[in-house]
Amino acid sequence: MEISIAQVAEILQGTVEGNGEAKVNRLEKIEEATEGSIAFLANPKYTNYIYDTQASGVIVSKEFTPEKEIKSTLIRVEDPYSSFAKLLEAYQQMTAIKKVGTEQPSFQSESATVGEEVYLGAFSYLGENVSIGDRTKIYPNAVIGDNVTIGNDTVIYPGVKIYANCKVGNNCVLHAGVVVGSDGFGFAPQEDGTYKTIPQTGNVIIEDHVDIGANTTIDCATMGSTIIRSGVKLDNLVQIAHNVEVGKNTVIASQAGLSGSAKIGENCQIGGQAGITGHLQMANKTIIGPQAGVPKTIKEEGKVWFGSPIQEHKEFLRTSIILRNLPQLMERVKQLEKKL
Amino acid sequence: MEISIAQVAEILQGTVEGNGEAKVNRLEKIEEATEGSIAFLANPKYTNYIYDTQASGVIVSKEFTPEKEIKSTLIRVEDPYSSFAKLLEAYQQMTAIKKVGTEQPSFQSESATVGEEVYLGAFSYLGENVSIGDRTKIYPNAVIGDNVTIGNDTVIYPGVKIYANCKVGNNCVLHAGVVVGSDGFGFAPQEDGTYKTIPQTGNVIIEDHVDIGANTTIDCATMGSTIIRSGVKLDNLVQIAHNVEVGKNTVIASQAGLSGSAKIGENCQIGGQAGITGHLQMANKTIIGPQAGVPKTIKEEGKVWFGSPIQEHKEFLRTSIILRNLPQLMERVKQLEKKL
Amino acid sequence: MEISIAQVAEILQGTVEGNGEAKVNRLEKIEEATEGSIAFLANPKYTNYIYDTQASGVIVSKEFTPEKEIKSTLIRVEDPYSSFAKLLEAYQQMTAIKKVGTEQPSFQSESATVGEEVYLGAFSYLGENVSIGDRTKIYPNAVIGDNVTIGNDTVIYPGVKIYANCKVGNNCVLHAGVVVGSDGFGFAPQEDGTYKTIPQTGNVIIEDHVDIGANTTIDCATMGSTIIRSGVKLDNLVQIAHNVEVGKNTVIASQAGLSGSAKIGENCQIGGQAGITGHLQMANKTIIGPQAGVPKTIKEEGKVWFGSPIQEHKEFLRTSIILRNLPQLMERVKQLEKKL
Repeated sequence: MEISIAQVAEILQGTVEGNGEAKVNRLEKIEEATEGSIAFLANPKYTNYIYDTQASGVIVSKEFTPEKEIKSTLIRVEDPYSSFAKLLEAYQQMTAIKKVGTEQPSFQSESATVGEEVYLGAFSYLGENVSIGDRTKIYPNAVIGDNVTIGNDTVIYPGVKIYANCKVGNNCVLHAGVVVGSDGFGFAPQEDGTYKTIPQTGNVIIEDHVDIGANTTIDCATMGSTIIRSGVKLDNLVQIAHNVEVGKNTVIASQAGLSGSAKIGENCQIGGQAGITGHLQMANKTIIGPQAGVPKTIKEEGKVWFGSPIQEHKEFLRTSIILRNLPQLMERVKQLEKKL
Repeated sequence: MEISIAQVAEILQGTVEGNGEAKVNRLEKIEEATEGSIAFLANPKYTNYIYDTQASGVIVSKEFTPEKEIKSTLIRVEDPYSSFAKLLEAYQQMTAIKKVGTEQPSFQSESATVGEEVYLGAFSYLGENVSIGDRTKIYPNAVIGDNVTIGNDTVIYPGVKIYANCKVGNNCVLHAGVVVGSDGFGFAPQEDGTYKTIPQTGNVIIEDHVDIGANTTIDCATMGSTIIRSGVKLDNLVQIAHNVEVGKNTVIASQAGLSGSAKIGENCQIGGQAGITGHLQMANKTIIGPQAGVPKTIKEEGKVWFGSPIQEHKEFLRTSIILRNLPQLMERVKQLEKKL
Repeated sequence: MEISIAQVAEILQGTVEGNGEAKVNRLEKIEEATEGSIAFLANPKYTNYIYDTQASGVIVSKEFTPEKEIKSTLIRVEDPYSSFAKLLEAYQQMTAIKKVGTEQPSFQSESATVGEEVYLGAFSYLGENVSIGDRTKIYPNAVIGDNVTIGNDTVIYPGVKIYANCKVGNNCVLHAGVVVGSDGFGFAPQEDGTYKTIPQTGNVIIEDHVDIGANTTIDCATMGSTIIRSGVKLDNLVQIAHNVEVGKNTVIASQAGLSGSAKIGENCQIGGQAGITGHLQMANKTIIGPQAGVPKTIKEEGKVWFGSPIQEHKEFLRTSIILRNLPQLMERVKQLEKKL
């Protein structure tokens, strides 16, 4: 599907500078773009690329003043990044695969109920009393356990496994290999050195607009529910233990782990490979750096923490500098000792 | 299924204080409990909740002396935690889904043998010469490779993948997405900078009463076996490399990784996100903290280690305090230099 | 399948010392070997084992001089390790399961094309316009999305999930549970605290001779491609974010994570649980230690880095020693203060 640069400019309410008749059919990065594509320039760091780019059209700010000749046609807009994101979205909607209907063979228990315009991929499995909302997509080889309810407009990618009794809301995306509702890690030590399994009788509740990355695991609660609130975004390979609660709009990067019964506030950001101890609270808008270790409750909102165990960011930076210069500090102590 | 609080007390051999006729049908936490539920009070930290809880019944110690009025009916027992665990277990057994039989379509090679009262979920796969014991459950979309043997009373959750020639014992639980027997990470560097694959011809042996968390991976041995001994408990997203041996009743928390040929003792505890170097031994009853890095053999039994690289726990704590105060130490050295 | 030790020696162009008629049928480690097996001695550390081993035959160097009597038959060769690797390979080829053909039920879209001598396991799924090369194996429950192309002689193990539009080359191995092409983690913060999904419209390109470990995840690019170059080896549970490029013959150990748009050079080695920040470059032949944290671009080739944040290896070792002795350093400062 090709359109002219002039048509793109019309969609973005921008103005054309150069050949508006040139045809484009895809979006590319300015530094890698080839003929027939649209790129954008928002970050000044990338300005140099505009003089050499092969993109047929480049979206730029109204204020942009070139210092050399540019071969590409320019589309001038208020905010190049937003405009490009808008195009990206339009592009995705046009190229998205609109899966609807039931592929065979698939397994649907007699007691399962399925909404309208649903996609059920081949080898997908719906257990007893499962309820699937409208326009929801269940990709191939996904397994939906007994009594699970899934809302409207949710996408369950291939090979997702949801255990019995869990709930998934509307407009969620669960990427391939996600596991929801596996047993919490609870074992009572016995006198003979063995462990006895503590039954995990609860479930997982995932509210609306939650995205969950590939192969992430979320355990069910011992009793009650492990809860992922609305708007939460989890990256790949994240671990959420039993009885954790993740507050609204909190974002957790890849390979981070949350131990049992941790209560994370709203609008927090947790870095990749960070580890959160169990049974603690984290205040709203807390930011945790990558590879950090959080050993206890964080009460004050909106602070930034780094390191393992964590320190406030400024303190962490100060400590880090001295750490890197420890050999010099040692030397200075030696000098002092000599002088005395 | 509802029973009276008096009936619960009878099961626990406890005494009722208050209305024994009230009906209950579920277990909840004291701080979240609603009418119709049973909760318990074991940890003194939670004592305050008992005066406001909506639980119809609360299991408490014989010694517990309330300081205010309590609306809930009390069940007094010797050990509230054990009693509650007992109830939890009874509850789980009553509500557990008793899956038996073969769902269709599923794939069973002609040479596979299957015990009595087995569950084979839809889209499960049994390769050549597979042997499945009695009362074992193979959930949907699990793949059991050629020549694999699985014992009695074992649960293989959805989407588990077991490679050819591996062995799984009795009373094991493998959670969704677990991979057993993938190739060990062995590549021989060649002169031209490429790597040649070292064939991984061994298998994985999982003994009895082993629990394995969701999406955990266990590689096969180069030769011989990667061995997970009886009673081992692995959390989610744990990595076990080729030729590792994990000793009896050792517990490993989420996202920890064990490198090739590490030999872990019995009754060890390894914290979340800890990393264990290859080709080392770890003595029995060793405890490794979260995010720790273990670079070499630990010979002495029963020690506690933290940090990366690890230090003994006391030393680690001492070092940590100085670390957090490095800027002050630096300042003191500066003062000394001035004075001289 | 049994052969005589003399026949093994012939394959390896070695000389027999002892009973060449003894029959062997498997390869074992010298320290664990039992009768009927072949073992090898390459590492001098293991020399003591040769006097007690039960192996029927042991491959040793031409130079090896025993200090005591050896019961096993010896096969003398130039390079025992290479010879053993050769045997291991021959052994694997003889015992490898030669899967060919299509098991039923499986799902193959009408527009999918499949090469010669291909294996399609039961419950495998080939979407629209999928193209599978010759001699490639797609194991049970693997899901190949629309428009995916896979080359020749590639092995896709059970439960692998490849999203639409991705490309996999020749002679690759994708282990069980691998996810290729899931959405990159891109969300634009909105004024009301929620996040808006940034469409991820790109794909993943995996070149030739790439090995990917179990449950590893590779996200698609926002635009363009996430690229895994020829000869790359990824261990289990590795995270590769959107728009990352991993250079030729780079090796990444288990549970390491690469953030978005990181460009990793050729022939690098990244240790287990290491974390790489996004939008950086890493020079060729860089070596990163386990659990390291790489915060910014590494320009110089061939350096070795440890720690989080990373230091050059020598510096890291020096700092580490002082770190472990911080309490003593503190004590020395106290003494100095007293003296003044």
